[in-house]
Formats: sequence, structure tokens, C-alpha cells
Amino acid sequence: MAERYPFPDLNTLPEDIRARILEVQEKAGFIPNVFLAFARRPAEWRAFFAYHDALMLKEEGSLTKGEREMIVTTTSAANQCLYCVVAHGAILRIYEKKPLVADQVAVNHRKADIPPRQKAMLDFAMKVCQRAHEIEDGDFEALYPHGFDDEDIWDIAAITAFFGLSNRMASFAGMQPNPEFYLMGRLPREKKA
Amino acid sequence: MAERYPFPDLNTLPEDIRARILEVQEKAGFIPNVFLAFARRPAEWRAFFAYHDALMLKEEGSLTKGEREMIVTTTSAANQCLYCVVAHGAILRIYEKKPLVADQVAVNHRKADIPPRQKAMLDFAMKVCQRAHEIEDGDFEALYPHGFDDEDIWDIAAITAFFGLSNRMASFAGMQPNPEFYLMGRLPREKKA
Amino acid sequence: MAERYPFPDLNTLPEDIRARILEVQEKAGFIPNVFLAFARRPAEWRAFFAYHDALMLKEEGSLTKGEREMIVTTTSAANQCLYCVVAHGAILRIYEKKPLVADQVAVNHRKADIPPRQKAMLDFAMKVCQRAHEIEDGDFEALYPHGFDDEDIWDIAAITAFFGLSNRMASFAGMQPNPEFYLMGRLPREKKA
Amino acid sequence: MAERYPFPDLNTLPEDIRARILEVQEKAGFIPNVFLAFARRPAEWRAFFAYHDALMLKEEGSLTKGEREMIVTTTSAANQCLYCVVAHGAILRIYEKKPLVADQVAVNHRKADIPPRQKAMLDFAMKVCQRAHEIEDGDFEALYPHGFDDEDIWDIAAITAFFGLSNRMASFAGMQPNPEFYLMGRLPREKKA
Amino acid sequence: MAERYPFPDLNTLPEDIRARILEVQEKAGFIPNVFLAFARRPAEWRAFFAYHDALMLKEEGSLTKGEREMIVTTTSAANQCLYCVVAHGAILRIYEKKPLVADQVAVNHRKADIPPRQKAMLDFAMKVCQRAHEIEDGDFEALYPHGFDDEDIWDIAAITAFFGLSNRMASFAGMQPNPEFYLMGRLPREKKA
Amino acid sequence: MAERYPFPDLNTLPEDIRARILEVQEKAGFIPNVFLAFARRPAEWRAFFAYHDALMLKEEGSLTKGEREMIVTTTSAANQCLYCVVAHGAILRIYEKKPLVADQVAVNHRKADIPPRQKAMLDFAMKVCQRAHEIEDGDFEALYPHGFDDEDIWDIAAITAFFGLSNRMASFAGMQPNPEFYLMGRLPREKKA
Repeated sequence: MAERYPFPDLNTLPEDIRARILEVQEKAGFIPNVFLAFARRPAEWRAFFAYHDALMLKEEGSLTKGEREMIVTTTSAANQCLYCVVAHGAILRIYEKKPLVADQVAVNHRKADIPPRQKAMLDFAMKVCQRAHEIEDGDFEALYPHGFDDEDIWDIAAITAFFGLSNRMASFAGMQPNPEFYLMGRLPREKKA
Repeated sequence: MAERYPFPDLNTLPEDIRARILEVQEKAGFIPNVFLAFARRPAEWRAFFAYHDALMLKEEGSLTKGEREMIVTTTSAANQCLYCVVAHGAILRIYEKKPLVADQVAVNHRKADIPPRQKAMLDFAMKVCQRAHEIEDGDFEALYPHGFDDEDIWDIAAITAFFGLSNRMASFAGMQPNPEFYLMGRLPREKKA
Repeated sequence: MAERYPFPDLNTLPEDIRARILEVQEKAGFIPNVFLAFARRPAEWRAFFAYHDALMLKEEGSLTKGEREMIVTTTSAANQCLYCVVAHGAILRIYEKKPLVADQVAVNHRKADIPPRQKAMLDFAMKVCQRAHEIEDGDFEALYPHGFDDEDIWDIAAITAFFGLSNRMASFAGMQPNPEFYLMGRLPREKKA
Repeated sequence: MAERYPFPDLNTLPEDIRARILEVQEKAGFIPNVFLAFARRPAEWRAFFAYHDALMLKEEGSLTKGEREMIVTTTSAANQCLYCVVAHGAILRIYEKKPLVADQVAVNHRKADIPPRQKAMLDFAMKVCQRAHEIEDGDFEALYPHGFDDEDIWDIAAITAFFGLSNRMASFAGMQPNPEFYLMGRLPREKKA
Repeated sequence: MAERYPFPDLNTLPEDIRARILEVQEKAGFIPNVFLAFARRPAEWRAFFAYHDALMLKEEGSLTKGEREMIVTTTSAANQCLYCVVAHGAILRIYEKKPLVADQVAVNHRKADIPPRQKAMLDFAMKVCQRAHEIEDGDFEALYPHGFDDEDIWDIAAITAFFGLSNRMASFAGMQPNPEFYLMGRLPREKKA
Repeated sequence: MAERYPFPDLNTLPEDIRARILEVQEKAGFIPNVFLAFARRPAEWRAFFAYHDALMLKEEGSLTKGEREMIVTTTSAANQCLYCVVAHGAILRIYEKKPLVADQVAVNHRKADIPPRQKAMLDFAMKVCQRAHEIEDGDFEALYPHGFDDEDIWDIAAITAFFGLSNRMASFAGMQPNPEFYLMGRLPREKKA
């Protein structure tokens, strides 16, 4: 499907978008495809990454950046989104410094080697992902003992909901993860090199 | 759940958000709850409505504004989102000038009194909503004979995906539709009054 | 599909059926399509409405007429039956004198503005509708504290089961709700006019 | 659950109901439990059996009595209704004079030893049973080549819908099949005795 | 599909397989089709029956042979496997000396006339059959009060898992149960004859 | 759950089992947990690995060893079996010499970078995995143009069915993949080292 929605030429993009993409390329060593796939529609690109940054880069709250990526990886696997599982699984491995965790939560978070706090977090995220209309008070109550407050829970729900959007767009448009993502964070020592 | 995530005081909001909300209130006669529900998080509010506007207010492409709202109403019903079915069903009735169509697509779009073009559009939207990972070339082929091109199809998918986000947030947070929405567009003559 | 199973001419119908239909027309101002759709088969018509009346018009038991219609509207929405959601949603609005409740339970009864008694009633009805084979003692126990006894529970189950029949027939035959139903009970003051 | 809804004493029943039950007992050698289970509510009993007779005892149309029972057995198994699978499986064996067919369609009608006409009939019945809201013109078209006309198809749908009611009531109320049904029609020679 | 994978000639089979088949024929009076269907691949045949015997013929543990067959019949019905429901339902009737139990668990084990111990056993088996990835400590805890220890629970899971394999092969290859199975164990007195 | 079914001491195992395990350890550099997890029950161990070898190590037929592992990885992901996805994904990467393919088919085989032949093979495997009772002639017809004959198709079905057994046992018993598997086959050059 790549032919259906080809990536735009980087040089034809609005300056703000081009600048952000070059910055990401500088940092990561490559341009993650999601930046180019959405760039064909600048207004949607800007809204998408503004939303992404508001949820994933925020410093407030008890969710770590690794936990945020863990929510993305787990719910994206439930939605069978190849791009997001591979790309965010890579970031999860790096943030959590746990090279095995992404594959575990992608297959079955109930069997992953994670603490009860993160299992409860993922149970809630999976319910928002698959049966949000059935969320009830008891689902909130199950999270409080693990140190999540209502703002953290909003974060869990919003990350799940936002990547539900991302999953559907990536699957629909046939977005492929960059090959670089597959190996990132699997070799802890390489980071020192 | 209204107590869990109370609406912020309008006067405490950032000026851009406050201005937009007052503008909506001026036009609609009331403030749709989604504007206040998200306002407690300004960065998310801005991204959400930027995305919304990019998809729902655009003038390009073959999808009418009514068809865009028809996608929202249909897929939101599949996601059992009370807020979006009632609020966007109202806008759908007004745009399409068909007082019955919103209730029809919300229950079963296959039985709605709509032309084959719109049925095909909703079939595609429902697949993006429920099984985006199974979208294949044949799904695109089914839309071309009805006059949709690949940009229109991106619109259908993106609207579905964006409101999938909105549905999950509204259900999770217990967002209630304003009472005004329920009757809007059901009495065509009132518009003349 | 209207052409597949056309409505019979009222004047050709057996006298008992014709009389009842004229009586309904007198009272409602129009003939609800279900009366004509089934009339092509008099024996089925008589059994259908005898069953309907036994369940919906009875005066015994703690279920109000409005609650009976609420069960119909909620489970018919789960079965995606356009005729029953629109027609019985109208009657529900009138009986309960709540113009918003039908739309609420049709989308998601968990978010409707109804008391816990009615939520429990609808939870049970939905289980009979979707997973009757899993009904167990605990489902009955959940209803007793709300004032339902075993006869009331039989009513809930029987109404759900009967309209499951109705839903399947209406969807199969493409039965459309009369346009009059869509607005009924939404404007409380009109009733005085 | 038998204690929850005990069978009424035969002698306390209205005369029309009592007479029919005695007639059935005379013919079958025992009283099928469904006759007693519903008898506690005479109005529902009368409507239920009037509907049953209109669909199952009619002489018109191309469906044989055995085919009608085959629809009941197959869809009741999909609904996991113990009473109906066992009781109507017995009648199916007798009418079709095929001692194995009931067990076959109850487990998987696709693998049953039946002609293509009956497979098509059961495919349609299963769709009415499980996804009536998705029935479309193509489902009718698939039946015409097998000699079914629109009246026959109404029969298939109505039998399926009616026994969907019966299935839900039997499962809800814990109705048990009489032990006599399990063996009926399995020993072809007994019929000569 | 019988033509796709025809049964091999008994005389062409390896001696160990042929001997076992003749032994079964001697005992049962006929050759159950599963022995011939798998015999076309001797290595798979040997592994299949070795596994079968290890699970179904073992003398250790608290599960009776009848209970083992009850697990097979129940989960095979959930998998809609005609061969296994009919063949193992027959063996279940014989082992348990209960001519009705096989039909009951095949339709709905919740309504079967079996003690709470066997209901709990079948609840666990059904979860392994349908949602093994969700098995958690609580599922084990539910079995201990009924006298099952961890080795018994392994048996329940392994029998379910093994016949899940068998179900898929039989359905895929169109394996038909021998006619003899349908009646076996239904007439307790015949065994004396 | 590792405590529930502890691994036996290698030295206490029957000699044939111990020898095979040491051989595997010699070749792989570690003992895959499945060999120890099943070893607590020697008869089941022998049947399990005999079946495994008959299906996975055979030289006949058009399925390559990599394709066999691709079936395992894909269907095990559908069953959410952590052990099999990680362990067989590793072997798949090695056999196919494609470091990305295992992650791709585990998330969504429709989006994997594989030829149409392998997509058709996985479509069939997924149907055997999830809806074997619906397999029909058309499913076979879809495979023939890709060069699969009926023996190859038996292989596809049997591998799927066998690992459905394995998946359920691994999930039930909480079997964890060895850490070594996660990285195997991801670094092609290491093999030369």
C-alpha cells in the first residue's frame, strides 16, 4: 500500500515540520516512517504530534516514560498494529532498560515479567482499548492501591485512546516500521559504544 | 463520574481556549461538554480540536460535512459512545437536513435510508473502526466506483480513527451529552423561526 | 426489502385483525408498520400480538410499563433492530416522561441517567439477550435487593426473549419504523396541545 | 432452578390448556416439560403454542416438518439450549427417519450428512440466529436455486426467531428435557413395535 | 472431504499400527475412524495415540476415566468437532453409566446433571480451551476445594489441549464418526445381552 | 506459576529423555524450557516430542523448515502464547535468514514482508487455529495455485493443531521462554563468529 500514500519529499514540507523531522533524524539516526507518512497532510501532522508530545513527553504524574511506552506496545499489539508494536516496543526497551519486556507485553501482558503495578495499569489500558464503554468505578478502584491517581488514570486512558487512532491509521495506510527499530534496545552494551 | 474529572472554570482557561469556547457558545447557544471536559488539559485540548478541525471542517475532497458526521455517528454507535452519538447525530441531522438519518445509522447503517455511496463509505468506516488490521486492497476497490479517491478514503479512515479516540475518552471519563443535542435537527421548521 | 414482503390491503384482513389495527390507528394517529408487516400471516399475527399483550400490557408485578419498554429499547439496540429501537424508544419516552432516556439506553445503558434498580434490570436483560445459556443463580441474586421477585424476573426475561424474536423478524424482513415514531415523546409540551 | 419456577398442578390449569396437555400426553406417552413450564402463565402459554403451531404444524410451503425441526435443532445448539436441542432433536430424528442427523447438525451443520438444499437452509437460519441485522439480498439469492421461495424463507426466519425466544426462556428458567427425548428416534425398528 | 485423505488399506500399515487397530476392532466390534484417518502417517499416528494413552488411560490421579471423557466431550462441542463429540460422548456414557450426560455437557455443561466438582472441572477445561492465555491463580484456587490437586489440574489442561489438536484435525480433514458411536451407551441393558 | 510445576532434576530423568535434552543443550548452548517443563511426565514428553519431530523435522513436502516455524509463530501469537512466539520466532529468524519476519507475522501476518504463497499458507493456518469447524473446500482451493498439495495442507493443519496444544499447555503452566531466544537470529553476522 506504500504506493497509495507515498511519502512527500522532505524539502517540500512546511518549515516547522521539516525542522522537527530533521531534529528527530539527528537524534535517532533515521527518520521514523510515521513522521513522513503523516507529513502529506500538514494540519493532521501538527495535531498528531502535538497530541503525542502532550501525552508521551510530559514530566508530570507518576507514569514513567517507559510505562507510557509499555501502554502503547501492549494496546497496539491488541490492535495488531505492526508499526506501533515494533517502533514503540523499541522505545520501551530503551526507556525501561529491559530488553525482553516489549516482546512479553506484546504477546501477553499477563505473563510479562513486570510488577503488579504495571499489570494493573495494562489491565486498565486493555479495557479502554477494547471495551471502553464498560469502564466503571471498580476499574478506577483497582488502580488506586498501586499509587495511580485520577490524573495518572487519565494519562493511561488518553495514551491508549491516542494510539488506537495511530494504530488504525498505520494499519489502514500500510505503514511499515523502519528496519532500525527491530533491534533497538536489545543489546544493552551497544549503547555505550 | 462527573465528580472525578470536573469541568474547569471558564475564566481560568488560557485565552485561546476561552475565546474558542465563547465563540462556540455564541454560535450554538450552549457550550458542548466536550469543550469543557478536555479543557482541564490545555495541550491535549489544543491538539484534539486542531485534529478535529483538520478533519471535519476541511473544504477539500468529495465528502460533504454531513457525510463526515455520518461516519462519526455510525462508528461512535459501534463503540457505544453516548456523547458522540448524541452530539454528532444532532450535527448530522442539521447538515444533511434529514431528521431521521442519525437514529438510523446509529442502530444499523445497513437499514438506513441512504444511497449506496454512503453505505459503502460506512462499510469501510466500520471496518477501520473494528478490524483495521484486516483492511486490504479489496476494501479500497469497493469505494472507487462510488466516486471516492484515495484522499477521500484517507478522510474516512482518519475521521473514524480520530473519533475512536474521542469515543474512548468520553466513555472513560463519563462525558454526558448536553440535553440540547437530543432534539437538534429533528424539527426542520424551527430553523426558520 | 419492502417489495419482498408487501403489506396486505387492510380491507382484505380478517375482521379481528382489521378491528385491532383500526383501533390502534385511532389511538396513535397512524398504523405502526409492525401491525401490517405481520398481518400477511394472520395466525402468526394473532400469536405475536397475544404474546406482546401478555407481556407488555399486564398490570401485575413491579415492572412499570416504562420499564418494560426500556428493556425492549435496550436489548433491541444490542440486536441492532432499527424498527424496535425507534418505535419502542418512542413509547419509552412517553411512558417514562423522560425525553432523553431512550437514546441513552440505546447507545449504552451503563451511562444512562437511570436509577440503580433499572441498571440492574437492564444488566440482566442484556445477559438474557446475549448469553442466556450462562444465566446462573448469581444473576437472580443481583436483582432481589432492588425489589424484583421471581415473577418480575420472569417478565424481564420473557420481554427480552420475545423482542429477540421481533428484532430478528424486523431485521430479516427489512421492516422500517414509521416516521412518526422518531419525534414522539421528545417534546413534552406537545402532548397538551 | 426447578424450584424457582415450579410446574403448576395439571388440575388447576384452565380447561383449554389442560385438554391440550392431556392430548399431547396421550400421543407422546409423557408430558414434554415445556408444556408445564409455560403453563404457570396461561396467556403466555396460549400465545407460545399458537405461534409454535402456526410455524411448525403448517402444511403449506416447501419445508417439510423434518426440515422445520432441523432448523430448530441447529439454531438451538448455537444458542446452547439444552431443552430444545434434546427435545427437537428427537422429533427431527423421527420426522426425517434419520437417527444420526440431529447429533450432526447440533455439533456442526457444515459436516452433517444432509443435501446442499438443507445446508443452505441452515446457513440462512444461522445468520438469522446470530447476525439478523446483517441479512442482505445476497442471503435470499443463495436460497432461491435450492427451491425456496420468499414464503419458505419467511418460514426459516420465523422458526429461527421463535425458537430463539424459546431457547432464552428455557435456559433462563433452567428447563430440563424429559429423559424420554434422549432416545427417541434412535432405534428405527422400535417404530414397528 | 473423505476423498481428499482416503483411509489406507489396513494390510499396508506398519505392524505395530495394524496390531493395535485389530485389537481395538476386536474389543469395540468396529474400527473407530480416527485410527484409520491418522494411519496414513505412521509417525503422527504413533505420537497421537501415545499422547492419547498417556492422558486417557492413566490410572493415577483423582480424575476418573469418565471424567476424562467428559472433558473431551464438553470442549470438543465448544470446538464444534463432530467426530469427537459423538465418539467420546459414547465412551462417556459407557464409563459414567449415565446415558444422558453426554448430550447434556455437549449442549451446555452449566445445565448438565453433574455434581459441583465436575462443573468446576469443566469450567476450567473450557477456559483452557477458549482463553488459556487468561488462566490465572484464581482458576486453580477454584478447583482445590473440589479435591483436585495440581497434578489433576495438569490432567484437565492436557486433555483439553490434546483434544483441541484432535478437534482441529478431525474438522479440517472432514473425519466422520462411525455410525456405531451414536447409540453406544444409550441402552444400559444391552450391555448385558 | 513456575513454583506450581517445578522442573525436574535432569539427573532423575529417564535415560532417553536425558540424552535428548543433553543433545539439544549441546547444539543450542542452553536447554529450552519446554524440554524441562514436560519432562516431569515422561510419557507425555515422549509423545509430545515425537509429534513435534514428525511435523517439524520432516524432509518431505514443499514446506520449508522456515515456513513450518512461520506457521508456529503466527498461530501462537493468535493464541497469545509467550513461550512459543519467542522461541519459535527465534528459530524462524534463523531458518528464514530474515531477522524481521518473526516480529511481523506475530503482530499481523497480513502486513508481513512475505510472498503471496506464505500469506495464503498463514491464512489457512489461522482458520484452522481459530475456526477449524468452518474449513471448507474453498479453503483448499485457495492454496493449490501457490503450489501446495493436499499433503502440504495436512502439514499446515497439523502444525497449527499441534502448537495449539503446545500454546495451551505453555500458557496454562506459565512456561517462560529462555532469555537466549529473544535475540537469536536478529544479528546475522554473529553466526559467522
